[in-house]
Amino acid sequence: MANDTFLRACRRQPAEYTPVWLMRQAGRYMKEYMAIRGKHTFLEMCKTPELACEVTLQPIRAFALDAAIIFADILLPLEGMGIKLEFAKNEGPQIKNPVRTKKDIDAVRVINPAEDVPYLLKAIKMVKSELNGRVPLIGFSGAPFTLASYIIEGEGSRNYIHTKGLMYSDPGAWKAFMEKIADVITVYLQAQIEAGAEAVQLFDSWVGCLGPDDYREFVLPYTKKVIDSVKNTVPVINFSTNTGTYLDIVKQAGGDVMGVDWRVRLDDAWKTIGHDRAIQGNLDPVVLFAPVEVIRRRVKEVLDMAGGKPGHIFNLGHGIIVGTPVDNVRALVDSVHEFSRR
Amino acid sequence: MANDTFLRACRRQPAEYTPVWLMRQAGRYMKEYMAIRGKHTFLEMCKTPELACEVTLQPIRAFALDAAIIFADILLPLEGMGIKLEFAKNEGPQIKNPVRTKKDIDAVRVINPAEDVPYLLKAIKMVKSELNGRVPLIGFSGAPFTLASYIIEGEGSRNYIHTKGLMYSDPGAWKAFMEKIADVITVYLQAQIEAGAEAVQLFDSWVGCLGPDDYREFVLPYTKKVIDSVKNTVPVINFSTNTGTYLDIVKQAGGDVMGVDWRVRLDDAWKTIGHDRAIQGNLDPVVLFAPVEVIRRRVKEVLDMAGGKPGHIFNLGHGIIVGTPVDNVRALVDSVHEFSRR
Repeated sequence: MANDTFLRACRRQPAEYTPVWLMRQAGRYMKEYMAIRGKHTFLEMCKTPELACEVTLQPIRAFALDAAIIFADILLPLEGMGIKLEFAKNEGPQIKNPVRTKKDIDAVRVINPAEDVPYLLKAIKMVKSELNGRVPLIGFSGAPFTLASYIIEGEGSRNYIHTKGLMYSDPGAWKAFMEKIADVITVYLQAQIEAGAEAVQLFDSWVGCLGPDDYREFVLPYTKKVIDSVKNTVPVINFSTNTGTYLDIVKQAGGDVMGVDWRVRLDDAWKTIGHDRAIQGNLDPVVLFAPVEVIRRRVKEVLDMAGGKPGHIFNLGHGIIVGTPVDNVRALVDSVHEFSRR
Repeated sequence: MANDTFLRACRRQPAEYTPVWLMRQAGRYMKEYMAIRGKHTFLEMCKTPELACEVTLQPIRAFALDAAIIFADILLPLEGMGIKLEFAKNEGPQIKNPVRTKKDIDAVRVINPAEDVPYLLKAIKMVKSELNGRVPLIGFSGAPFTLASYIIEGEGSRNYIHTKGLMYSDPGAWKAFMEKIADVITVYLQAQIEAGAEAVQLFDSWVGCLGPDDYREFVLPYTKKVIDSVKNTVPVINFSTNTGTYLDIVKQAGGDVMGVDWRVRLDDAWKTIGHDRAIQGNLDPVVLFAPVEVIRRRVKEVLDMAGGKPGHIFNLGHGIIVGTPVDNVRALVDSVHEFSRR
C-alpha cells in the first residue's frame, strides 16, 4: 500500500500526517460526477461496475485523499431482501411495500451477496485493481437502525413514527426484524471485505432520533452483533450522527474507529470514547461553504483538539453537501496534510 | 391563581404534584382545532384574537393541563420587521425577501408590538380573562438563532447553508443582525408580559445544527441578552433541541427553567444544568403513539429521573406531532399527576 496513513490511524499507529477522506466524496458537487449522472440514473450508476468504479475514483484523482470509499447506496441490499425500492425523479428513494407487521418481517429475506449485489462486489474488485495500492478502499453499509427505519418508514422521515411505533408496541417483532437486518448487514459487509474492502464503515445516520435508553435497548445489541462478526477481518468504523449525548453507549457497540459529528468537540468526544479507540471527524460540512481562510482555521482547530495523537482520521461530521465548491474541498484536504505533517 | 403548580415549579418551590403542559398543545391533533382551521387560514387564526383565544383554551378544557400557552407563531414578529411572509397552501411559511446581506440587515426594523402585533396582545388579554386564574398563561418567542436562521434561509432548512455562510464569512454582519433580533424579541416578550403572560418561553428549535463552539460565539451573547432583559419580570424557560452535548454552554444564556429534548436523560441533563435551576421535559413526542401502558411506563421513568425534586415541569421534548391520539394525550397528563402526587 503506497499510502497506508488511513489504515495506520485505524489501528492508532503513528503516521506522517493525519489522514483525511470525506463522507460522500464521490458525489454531485463534482462536475465529473454530474457528467456521468446526466446520462444514467442513480441506480444504473450503482449497478454498473464500470460506472461505480469510475465515480469512486474521481475524488481520488481530484484531491489528495487518503482513502477511497466504494460508490454505493445504503439501500442496495433491499432488493435481495424482497423490498421494492423506487428512486422517483428528483425525490428520495421510496419503498412500495414498507415493513410494518410481524408478517412483513417474516417475509424479509437475508440476502446472498454473490447473487443479490454481484455488481457491487465486481465494482470493488475493479476499484482495487485501478487503485493498485495507491490508497485503501472502504466498504460500507447502513447500520441496523438506519436500515430498519428506512424499510419501516418507506422513505425519509421526520419523526420516525412507524419505526418507534413498532419498537414501543411490539418489542418482539422489533427484535426479530433487527436480528434479521443484522444478519443481512453482516453478510453484506463480509462479502465486501472478501471482494477487497480494506476497512468498512457502518452509517447510522438516523439513530440520533432516539434517546439514550432506547438506543441501549433497541439498537446496541444489533449493531454490536454486526461489528463483532466482522471486527477481526478489517478495521470497522462505527459512525452515527446526533448521538453525541450518549457516545458512552454507542461505543459499547464496538468499532476500531468511532465516527462523530460536529455537535461534540472532538477532544470531549475522544475522552468519552476512550483513547484506546481511534476517532473520525468532525468538521461541520457547511464550513466548506466558507472562505478558504475560515476553512483552514477550522481544520486547524479540529486537528488541535485531536492533539496530534495517533488514531485521528480527519473527516466531516456528515456527508459533503451538494453545491460545495470543489476548490474548498481541495483546500480542506491540503490543509489537513499541511497542518498535521510531523 | 387556582392552580399555581407550574409557577411554583418554575421557582423550584414544592407543589402537590409535578405540573405538565405540552408544547404545541393547541394544534392539529385536536378535532376542535381542525373545526376552526377548516374555516380559517393559519394566519387568520393568529391574527383574530377571538380565534387565537378559543384555540388556546381548547386543550385546557380537554385535559388537566397546568398551564396554557398563547396560540401564536414564532414568525409573527416578521411583518413588523419589514419581512414579507407567505403561508403557502400545504407548505411551511416562505419569506419572499430573505435577509442575506449587510444591506438587508440594515433594512430590518425593530418592531413596535402595540402597532405590529396588537392582535396577539389582545388575545393574551382575552385568554387571561377567560382563564380567570384557572392556570397561568405562557407567552413565547422564537430564540434569536431560530428566528435569524428562518429569516436568512427564507424557509425550513436542512443544512442552514446561508445562515452559517453569513456567520462564517461576515461575523460583523451576523453580530449586527443578532443584536437587532435580540432587540425585537425583547420588546416582543416584554409586551406579552405586560399584556398578562405569567411566564415566557424562548424556542430555539433549530440551534442544534451548531456545534458547541459556534453556539458559544454566535448565539450565546444574544440569547443571554434577551433573557437578561426580561428575567426579573416573570419566569423564563430557555428551550432548545439537539443541544444536549453542550447544555453546559446553553445554560449560561440563563433561564429560570431549561427545556431539554429526549436525547438526554433528564437526570443527566439536570445534573449538567445544576439543581439551582428548574428543568422542563422531556418525553419523546412519538411515545404518544404507543399503547397507553407504554406511555404510563415512560412517564414514570421521566418522573423517576426527576426524583421528585421541586423544579421539574413535565413536558415533551418537542411539540405534539400531528396525528397524536387525543386519548393518549389525556393518559399522559393524568399519569403525570397520578404518579407525582405527594
